[in-house]
Amino acid sequence: MTESTGSPAPPGDAAAQPVARPRPATLREVATAARLDISTVSRALRPETRSRVKPETVKRVLATADALGYRANPFARGLKDQRSMTIGMLVPDLGNPLFPPIVRGIEDGLRDHGYAMILANTDQDLGREANLLDVFMQRRVDGLVLATALRSYPLLDTLVDSGLPVVLVNRTMDEAGISMVSGDDHQGIGLAVKHLVELGHRRIAFAGAALSASTGFNRYQHFLAWMVSLGLSVDEDLIVFAPWFSKEAGAEATAELLERDRAFTAVVAASDMIALGCYRALRERGLKVPDDVSVVGYNGSRWCDEFAPPLTSIHVPKYEIGLQTAQVLLTMLEVPGSAPANILLPTTLQVRSSTAAV
Amino acid sequence: MTESTGSPAPPGDAAAQPVARPRPATLREVATAARLDISTVSRALRPETRSRVKPETVKRVLATADALGYRANPFARGLKDQRSMTIGMLVPDLGNPLFPPIVRGIEDGLRDHGYAMILANTDQDLGREANLLDVFMQRRVDGLVLATALRSYPLLDTLVDSGLPVVLVNRTMDEAGISMVSGDDHQGIGLAVKHLVELGHRRIAFAGAALSASTGFNRYQHFLAWMVSLGLSVDEDLIVFAPWFSKEAGAEATAELLERDRAFTAVVAASDMIALGCYRALRERGLKVPDDVSVVGYNGSRWCDEFAPPLTSIHVPKYEIGLQTAQVLLTMLEVPGSAPANILLPTTLQVRSSTAAV
Repeated sequence: MTESTGSPAPPGDAAAQPVARPRPATLREVATAARLDISTVSRALRPETRSRVKPETVKRVLATADALGYRANPFARGLKDQRSMTIGMLVPDLGNPLFPPIVRGIEDGLRDHGYAMILANTDQDLGREANLLDVFMQRRVDGLVLATALRSYPLLDTLVDSGLPVVLVNRTMDEAGISMVSGDDHQGIGLAVKHLVELGHRRIAFAGAALSASTGFNRYQHFLAWMVSLGLSVDEDLIVFAPWFSKEAGAEATAELLERDRAFTAVVAASDMIALGCYRALRERGLKVPDDVSVVGYNGSRWCDEFAPPLTSIHVPKYEIGLQTAQVLLTMLEVPGSAPANILLPTTLQVRSSTAAV
Repeated sequence: MTESTGSPAPPGDAAAQPVARPRPATLREVATAARLDISTVSRALRPETRSRVKPETVKRVLATADALGYRANPFARGLKDQRSMTIGMLVPDLGNPLFPPIVRGIEDGLRDHGYAMILANTDQDLGREANLLDVFMQRRVDGLVLATALRSYPLLDTLVDSGLPVVLVNRTMDEAGISMVSGDDHQGIGLAVKHLVELGHRRIAFAGAALSASTGFNRYQHFLAWMVSLGLSVDEDLIVFAPWFSKEAGAEATAELLERDRAFTAVVAASDMIALGCYRALRERGLKVPDDVSVVGYNGSRWCDEFAPPLTSIHVPKYEIGLQTAQVLLTMLEVPGSAPANILLPTTLQVRSSTAAV
């Protein structure tokens, strides 16, 4: 395993090598050793141009390059191609269990194509996000993946000006013309509401998230749509919004809901974190889940099994969303001017112990 | 916020700009506009050399560069400096809650110094890890951070050959001469054992992790040392090892412990994930935590509060470990040949509901 990264010392001369860090062989040295001109060697070494060189020649070049420990210099290549082979990704908070599997999927989807990913956290701070986009552009990333969740996006002009391929992941934007990959929130909220209706619930509350976040807005809209289409009345007093996707925000919103003193037997939460906040606020009021109130979360994080009680949730296929995001981005990089894609992946209902019949 | 990333159109000429992606201004254009020679402009633009230029000149250069929308080309700079301003980091699994806060700390520590981080997951696969190290070296990263946890590391030669600054995070290596930043496992295991002893426990079991992992090995050694130094007898039948830091592995190890049918009233687990496995195996045997058995976890992940029951754990200062890692790496980058640092940060005991008096 270590051979391919070893020293470029010629065979038999290893003992004579100085201990200092070895200088990598240059393209010219490979060309001289292979008795070929530099442009042929360059074409043979690059996967995109390799087909223009005779197979025997490619074989000779690769063997020589390997023997000399030649390493393509991505800077020299970047200067010529204007490609950094790097993708910039912004997430609000990597500590939110939603994001690591998405990041894994993107990483796995990009790796075989030679792209690496630079990842940064924004903490939902638009100033920081603007700075990070600037850093990404200074580093001449080839594309961007944004998991930062604002629906109306003040930095949109910056993105459009950059001319870079951009994919939004787990979010949508009101403006058309940008590629997006996310779970199907309409179908997912439908699964949550129908599950509760099947258990006999009619007075169903909604603990939403900020409407400025696309997932917050969409899940709220879909909740209303499903309640109406299933013939249930929508009671505005049973709808609250957490300012963000956190347990604390969810607990505050649910406390507000409880203070209104309107009867309900179930809550659809806009995320698992908000559902955890529901648990806390209900517990503080002496209410039991699911005996007194059923709770459905959203996202299906790997922790749902550990919560007390284990949380029924809508499972969003996070890893697959990451893989699709990589695919969409690769298409945009390889086919400039390709039409933006809007991909929604189906969700599934995971029934655990937080929901029960009325 | 968008101004600094906007188009380089001269003032008053915005309407005449073509809609195509604007070409960034070159260093020569900045020099011409500022009526200075290129080398002065170059020195003024680079933080490392700025002090060699008069402050008024620096001010003029920065204003001109800003007005023309000049952007340093990291490829050109990389070619000259042999620096990519990029750090490669390997983690076993970003989905393990231990790693996101460490990554955040490193990111925050590096950002102001212009370094970006390329992150990749190894899934504890050494072949994959070797490939990723190779990719990092092809991309000419300036340094490496390894959170992959093997104690004896077959890729060590590759690392030493690379001559790159390397920092191990949350792990140690038997070989000396490499910088490491982690929590103080000796002190942390001491907190766990002393907490149980104070609650009256004497028959204390240990649910360890693989001894091939440095954290697995160290925590086991420290457990033995603390039991002996506190005057408690070590019963080998009360020691089991999970093959990895996962709930499933922890459940299997604890099931093995229970099959041995030796009395114990408490378990020290080598990680929170293993502790979750203890919960499961104990529950399957009809044993209650903490009524029948007290359990202490390790790491103090943000999820400990949510577990049933909330898990008493040793809090490892993950974000601070990340910040320190960045600091050590920056020192190695700025002062080549500086001595390797071995930094241990103190842990704290977080008492929750999984431990009680005998």
